[in-house]
Amino acid sequence: MMALISPSRRLRRTPFSEGVEAAGCKAYTVYNHMLLPTVFASVQEDYAHLKRAVQVWDVACERQIELRGPDAGRLMQMLTPRDLRGMTVGQCWYVPIVDETGGMLNDPVALKLAEDRYWVSIADSDLLMWVKAVAYGWRLEVLVDEPDVSPLAVQGPLADALAARVFGEAVRNLRFFRFGWFEFQGASHVIARSGYSRQGGFEIYVEGGQHGMPIWNALMNAGREMDVRAGCPNLIERIEGGLLSYGNDMTRENTPHECGLGKFCNTQTAIGCIGRDALLRVARDGPVRQVRPISIEGPPVPGCDRPWPIMDGDDQVGQVTSAAWSPDYETNVAIGMVRMTHWDFATDIDVVLPDGTVRAAVVQKTFWI
Amino acid sequence: MMALISPSRRLRRTPFSEGVEAAGCKAYTVYNHMLLPTVFASVQEDYAHLKRAVQVWDVACERQIELRGPDAGRLMQMLTPRDLRGMTVGQCWYVPIVDETGGMLNDPVALKLAEDRYWVSIADSDLLMWVKAVAYGWRLEVLVDEPDVSPLAVQGPLADALAARVFGEAVRNLRFFRFGWFEFQGASHVIARSGYSRQGGFEIYVEGGQHGMPIWNALMNAGREMDVRAGCPNLIERIEGGLLSYGNDMTRENTPHECGLGKFCNTQTAIGCIGRDALLRVARDGPVRQVRPISIEGPPVPGCDRPWPIMDGDDQVGQVTSAAWSPDYETNVAIGMVRMTHWDFATDIDVVLPDGTVRAAVVQKTFWI
Repeated sequence: MMALISPSRRLRRTPFSEGVEAAGCKAYTVYNHMLLPTVFASVQEDYAHLKRAVQVWDVACERQIELRGPDAGRLMQMLTPRDLRGMTVGQCWYVPIVDETGGMLNDPVALKLAEDRYWVSIADSDLLMWVKAVAYGWRLEVLVDEPDVSPLAVQGPLADALAARVFGEAVRNLRFFRFGWFEFQGASHVIARSGYSRQGGFEIYVEGGQHGMPIWNALMNAGREMDVRAGCPNLIERIEGGLLSYGNDMTRENTPHECGLGKFCNTQTAIGCIGRDALLRVARDGPVRQVRPISIEGPPVPGCDRPWPIMDGDDQVGQVTSAAWSPDYETNVAIGMVRMTHWDFATDIDVVLPDGTVRAAVVQKTFWI
Repeated sequence: MMALISPSRRLRRTPFSEGVEAAGCKAYTVYNHMLLPTVFASVQEDYAHLKRAVQVWDVACERQIELRGPDAGRLMQMLTPRDLRGMTVGQCWYVPIVDETGGMLNDPVALKLAEDRYWVSIADSDLLMWVKAVAYGWRLEVLVDEPDVSPLAVQGPLADALAARVFGEAVRNLRFFRFGWFEFQGASHVIARSGYSRQGGFEIYVEGGQHGMPIWNALMNAGREMDVRAGCPNLIERIEGGLLSYGNDMTRENTPHECGLGKFCNTQTAIGCIGRDALLRVARDGPVRQVRPISIEGPPVPGCDRPWPIMDGDDQVGQVTSAAWSPDYETNVAIGMVRMTHWDFATDIDVVLPDGTVRAAVVQKTFWI
């Protein structure tokens, strides 16, 4: 299925769309009601380039939810089973967000901007509705809204060199999942060392849509001799790296523990977290199924546009939810949810593709590690 | 912008996707994280056919939120400023859903299945998150979930004839915005006289994905001599008909009154409605801007992929959010939000398209009336 996408205001453009189009974006997905580029040259060419040079990504679709006011910290803790007491200003924390049953609503990165101010940089679900209703239901003293902030990622081995040229050498000192404020043409923007790849780099939280194209253009111009290109989160690279995708590899059906996010849960001490009661037992005993990296034999698989059953004989023991041919590993790399009986390293399984069944195996940790 | 859409599980397929693909769907949009067809032959050919024959539409993306339990009615009233006391089982009601500030969160149709059971057939936002958090915050005795229900629409002047062949003559007796239960191959499905066109027809709330293709095929086979075709909500027809689209013509920025939905608000008597306080004044005084049908002069406009400013000289007095060339009216038909000073019938305005400014005028009521 490679059909066209019909334009409408509902599929929001971004402050960088002009640059994305000029760079020849060939395909998109829709993410938080916004266009997210998926292909420039080709998924394989983009992949190779990302691993050797540097790319600028329009990830404006990582919308922010801002919590501001005296109860911002209390609200933030209500949203996640991660104990936030140790979080300091300047840190980014990956925070699973769960509903009252412990089901995943989103897997954002939270930025603590001040003691009474957070941004929650969300994956693909209208988490704003949940957060607003919780704040309202508990009568919290907090403002909850979507600010005019659009992340732009700089990813790849040359990311430090490129970012330093545009934002100054100090950007190199940012530690992983820390952020600081950096100036560009008189305006200040949050820049974090983070991003949806394993190649390293930054996310620039561009505040004010009018600054979007000037920053895009400055990066493109400064990186010319580094072979900088417009890019986007790359399907192959993110599967190799074990980076999960909300809506693909996990949904509201899943607990954080099933998603391998148990290390980000401190259910016992996350006092006030919605869903805590529901998660206490799974936090102690562990889940009965869990996300695993999987290699699938045979020729390149088609796009994984629906869950592919994982079978052991006639028994379904899981499902694959992301997959792509990896040129570097010379196999199909995949992510799936596998039942406890079959999740050990090297377990042989079958995967049912739309056009036939193929052999597969559970891989140790991620391809990346 | 007519780029490709990348497949992924996150852009969910529907129980009817197989039929849609076999019928040669050329383009999609994404709606509630699900694929919604937008073009089969061409938008103009689909339009002409819809007005003369009958089409079957995969509108599974109209996901349902089910409210079930002793507090279902109380929760339903908390969600909308429409006074629901007169609603009886078997009715569909169009219910604006607002947040605590009176901002539109969705504009669904609610079906009252029983005194303690509703389906809310939603437009494009994850309203489930809001409803679940409200139910939880107020400790209501109610289950809130997304059931396995996928609407399939039969629309067009021959819709009655076609539906009667598959579901029996009794379906003809359904009144507008009423529903009943009808049997197909031993299973019972809700069918309502409703749909997102002005050509008349039904929506079949197919319960259980496994019934999807059998019903699709039965309709296609039964309608062969009526020239039944796979179709989809048609951009031209819905603008002509004044059917608003959430995310396009209205967002959380807007009150129901701005959207012309004041007639569905009984703010004074909708006791318990969230946002009631915020809406009381606007309900009395009216809004300062409101949705209007607009005709735009000149050649066919491009796809409206961003709001187009409406100007009077140097002053912005509104924006156009949906537009298409209408073969029947031989003009560009559009929907926009216009400031009170310029919203009267026949007011001359300018619309700023991406490639230049064109003359336009406010139209009386909808094109359709």
